[in-house]
Amino acid sequence: MKILDIVDNPQDLKKISKEKLSILAKEIREEIINTISINGGHLAPSLGVVELTVAIHYVFDSPSDKIIWDVGHQSYAHKILTGRKNEFKTIRTYSGLSGFPSRSESKHDAFGVGHSSTSISAALGFATARDIKNENYKAVAVIGDGSMTGGLAFEGLQNAGHLKKNMLVILNDNEMFISQKVGAVAEYLTKLLTAGVARKVEEKVLKAVSKLHNFGSHFRKFIKRAKVILFPGMLFEEMGFTYIGPVQGHDINNLIVILENIKDIEGPVLLHVITKKGKGYAPAENKPIKFHGVGKFDVKTGEVVKTHEITYTKIFSDTLIKLARSDKKIIAITAAMPEGTGLDRFAKEFPNRYFDVGIAEEHAITFAAAMAADDMKPVCAIYSTFMQRAIDNIIHDVALQNLPVTFVLDRAGLVGEDGGTHHGSFDLSYLNYIPNLIIMSPADENELQHMLKTALNSNKPCAVRYPKGVGVGIKLDKSPCVLKIGKGIVVKEGNDICFLAIGSHVNTCLKATQLLEKDNIKASVINMRFLKPLDVDIIKEKLLKTKKFVTVEENSLIGGFGESVKNVLFGIGAEVECIGLPDKFVEHGNVKILREKYGFTPESIAKKALKMFANGKN
Amino acid sequence: MKILDIVDNPQDLKKISKEKLSILAKEIREEIINTISINGGHLAPSLGVVELTVAIHYVFDSPSDKIIWDVGHQSYAHKILTGRKNEFKTIRTYSGLSGFPSRSESKHDAFGVGHSSTSISAALGFATARDIKNENYKAVAVIGDGSMTGGLAFEGLQNAGHLKKNMLVILNDNEMFISQKVGAVAEYLTKLLTAGVARKVEEKVLKAVSKLHNFGSHFRKFIKRAKVILFPGMLFEEMGFTYIGPVQGHDINNLIVILENIKDIEGPVLLHVITKKGKGYAPAENKPIKFHGVGKFDVKTGEVVKTHEITYTKIFSDTLIKLARSDKKIIAITAAMPEGTGLDRFAKEFPNRYFDVGIAEEHAITFAAAMAADDMKPVCAIYSTFMQRAIDNIIHDVALQNLPVTFVLDRAGLVGEDGGTHHGSFDLSYLNYIPNLIIMSPADENELQHMLKTALNSNKPCAVRYPKGVGVGIKLDKSPCVLKIGKGIVVKEGNDICFLAIGSHVNTCLKATQLLEKDNIKASVINMRFLKPLDVDIIKEKLLKTKKFVTVEENSLIGGFGESVKNVLFGIGAEVECIGLPDKFVEHGNVKILREKYGFTPESIAKKALKMFANGKN
Repeated sequence: MKILDIVDNPQDLKKISKEKLSILAKEIREEIINTISINGGHLAPSLGVVELTVAIHYVFDSPSDKIIWDVGHQSYAHKILTGRKNEFKTIRTYSGLSGFPSRSESKHDAFGVGHSSTSISAALGFATARDIKNENYKAVAVIGDGSMTGGLAFEGLQNAGHLKKNMLVILNDNEMFISQKVGAVAEYLTKLLTAGVARKVEEKVLKAVSKLHNFGSHFRKFIKRAKVILFPGMLFEEMGFTYIGPVQGHDINNLIVILENIKDIEGPVLLHVITKKGKGYAPAENKPIKFHGVGKFDVKTGEVVKTHEITYTKIFSDTLIKLARSDKKIIAITAAMPEGTGLDRFAKEFPNRYFDVGIAEEHAITFAAAMAADDMKPVCAIYSTFMQRAIDNIIHDVALQNLPVTFVLDRAGLVGEDGGTHHGSFDLSYLNYIPNLIIMSPADENELQHMLKTALNSNKPCAVRYPKGVGVGIKLDKSPCVLKIGKGIVVKEGNDICFLAIGSHVNTCLKATQLLEKDNIKASVINMRFLKPLDVDIIKEKLLKTKKFVTVEENSLIGGFGESVKNVLFGIGAEVECIGLPDKFVEHGNVKILREKYGFTPESIAKKALKMFANGKN
Repeated sequence: MKILDIVDNPQDLKKISKEKLSILAKEIREEIINTISINGGHLAPSLGVVELTVAIHYVFDSPSDKIIWDVGHQSYAHKILTGRKNEFKTIRTYSGLSGFPSRSESKHDAFGVGHSSTSISAALGFATARDIKNENYKAVAVIGDGSMTGGLAFEGLQNAGHLKKNMLVILNDNEMFISQKVGAVAEYLTKLLTAGVARKVEEKVLKAVSKLHNFGSHFRKFIKRAKVILFPGMLFEEMGFTYIGPVQGHDINNLIVILENIKDIEGPVLLHVITKKGKGYAPAENKPIKFHGVGKFDVKTGEVVKTHEITYTKIFSDTLIKLARSDKKIIAITAAMPEGTGLDRFAKEFPNRYFDVGIAEEHAITFAAAMAADDMKPVCAIYSTFMQRAIDNIIHDVALQNLPVTFVLDRAGLVGEDGGTHHGSFDLSYLNYIPNLIIMSPADENELQHMLKTALNSNKPCAVRYPKGVGVGIKLDKSPCVLKIGKGIVVKEGNDICFLAIGSHVNTCLKATQLLEKDNIKASVINMRFLKPLDVDIIKEKLLKTKKFVTVEENSLIGGFGESVKNVLFGIGAEVECIGLPDKFVEHGNVKILREKYGFTPESIAKKALKMFANGKN
């Protein structure tokens, strides 16, 4: 019998003797590996914190104590230990457990999450509410070293240091972000590590001071090195935190002792814990990036089930490299997503024109704006959902100054298993009202290369948004060419009804027209290409032939493409049906299931069109 | 003859002998005081950096060197010294100089600005572009201590420390932000100041170390204090910067020596300069907050021309205090704008339920979300333009979790003299697509109190947006009451045409109806109150009486109220004209002028309505 069999919740956990906890951790790890090998998911981050999670739930009392996971992709062990072990097999599947903490899923998920760097602010919010109510619970944030690079984390640290609330921030330093040396914080943490693990401050000080006198004129240089030894975590101490660490993060019993010792320290405390991403599963330990977020894989070999289909990301990557070879002004910027955005290959070929700024989307854009102001052509490749963080920078630093920055929004529309926090549901809406901005979305991977070239050729702020995953499998033109800005194209003729689509559903519409032919309905399809400037002429020209229009966009129906089309066709006798995402946060699940549910299949699009002929074809 | 008479640009400045520079500074100061006493503007910040500005332009070569002013409200001396002294009298007036740096205004304004904390990212962008191009100019950011609290500044510091570009960040520490002790950074800077001004590091170290041995068991406590003396600016040094300072910021010649000395230091340098806000003008020195952004005033007495009209801000402030007296769950949060938002008075009465988080809008919202998750009712009062920074936090932390946070957006719509960076032109658009969010805007100050009560009573995420300045002068109901969510009201009957308005232009529409009566047109006015949920019923009911509608909103026409109404009225034979802000960044100038230009007067609204009767009243 497994120990995990008798542990359903944190109360059960506390009854397990400390000696058996490492066995429990092993069982949890197996559970995670087996499930994720089938469902896919954030394997390496969750494996890295199994011991830490056990220790936290052993020492603290969830749900009265609030445990807040930053990003939340490392919360699998937490889910297993808080009443969800039987459902764990459903994680990330439609109507199954979410891949992230979610308040609606469990009272143990104190604060829902998916984006980075929110946990310190949230823990401080809880600690503040607690004190106002004279309650007595603990607030604990667990934040990775990557998340610590975000400006929001800094804002949280600085307000926490100011308010001096009792709260614990556990910095889960998994050495992965550090290995990439992105940002000064990562370098700083490295220095902390080299200062040694878990030595007492006093010992270090005495030792260092005794050495001071031997250094003569090299004094200042030495001092610079000695700082870290003298005052580990000074960056955090300067922010008003008591810094403790670094401590090893895979020894549960040691972690329990430390957490017990520090849980009653007054004021904000930062505990620096060193963990290994992918811990306990050799393939993930060896390739933590590959196993950060992973699809199906073979547990024995670590072989990931590969698809050889060509993704939009790859075409973006290929095209940018191609264009950058002949245009030295092209710069690529990512916010800690080199692999996800496909910029890792650009980085290899053009290391001096590639910038990974850390999880700092706002900075990425403003940094790019200034480069554009000095005659560069920066390309910021950021997922649609994460670009939400940089809207003011797009407005205030780029668009207002009309600077030629290209925004590349990967993962626009439904992303599937990551769910509500990650769907790119809003970008057409949050970009549409921004003056000076050109907004486009390719119908297929071939058009993506043309749009990228068009953007870089425009000398204007441009956004290109495209979906996660594989393209439509179309043959690529040999070289990217410049499209006419603000012009759509008719991709199929037919005068009974007209589909106006932007993005990859141009092809879904084409399939829908075939279905409609069975009903003897001849439908045209216009690939609008640009949300802004919108091709008003092509719509009005079509209006001479038909009064029936269907718009299709994988974006919220509010403030996006469909409403823009309605605006053009208002009051001139046209009928318009809009297909898009509803006004709600869309759940997680396989993209295919979600597309079916929300009406993005040829069948449902055809059905919607057919309804417009309810009184017979007229 | 004044020295300023012979100084038109930085090249002229360099010909002035150093001894005369302080006289020049005095002349610039007078020019600023005299002009701002008439035009209004950011007096205290600009007075604080006159000497610093002279020194910067003496040492660096603008425009080839890039001088980047954070926020930019301190750039008046810079404008005077860079070819704009004759136009300076037009500052902040319609078609005159902008109150902020603007690339379209001068080649000396390297990077346009208005919002806080962008300068480090921008300077790094320039420095990076420079190195890619193998050019040789300097990049200098001047950033206030307040701006340094923003997460974006931290992201900039951390990437700059990482890339190790040659660049200079001048921290303009005006002791004003510090006096309020907002945030750990402010407290940290205070510590730096107490460490003394401009002492050499070596001296401090030697002195401190010699004392170390005398402290026995109080060792660690001492160490904590000694840190700052041993390693001033360590926070910045940890981020990869060479820290220099603090130095006094009103001695031009000393500043010149320092800037000359450090301008060729390799890598990123942070120079910590101490200035006094309002320097050289006693009323502003004594009341720097009052003179931060000020209207007309009497130069001799410092008396500000007061209006006794009641502002929306005051009603918000009064109402929140009133409600908070009987509801202990109400919390107020500002991002460094206690006076501007009216929360200063709340702070006095409820110090434990008031939080100024610094210029950290993102944190403000996430912090609030967690408090709401623990049963509080947080109210985040942030100007419309600055809320653009926190859109992801509204989406991801509040709306997705359906948490009852109230967003209070002051300065929605046109703000006047501050111009394009500050108009609240977009909030209806950037909020409208967010699921779960209730969005409302009061027709007058009386309705504002009801909406605030409605929001706090709703147990939902709510946004209330209202304009800058005075209300319509309506009598206030004795106590705020709860409005029916999603319901508008007919405020005037008439069946020829219907005005649908949201926000303060309900009253402009009422005036327009009076003008229309002269043409024998009977117009109704509906105060829609809610953008979301939109009162579809009241619109459709009116459709039984008239087919003509005019929508009015002081927001971009894209993605806002008018488009939502068109969506409701699409395809059912209605005519709709939408009045709102055009798809451009609106210039600066008096609000009255701008409202006239953009069609928000009763006359222009009536004219728009009349046009719908072009073929006679039908």
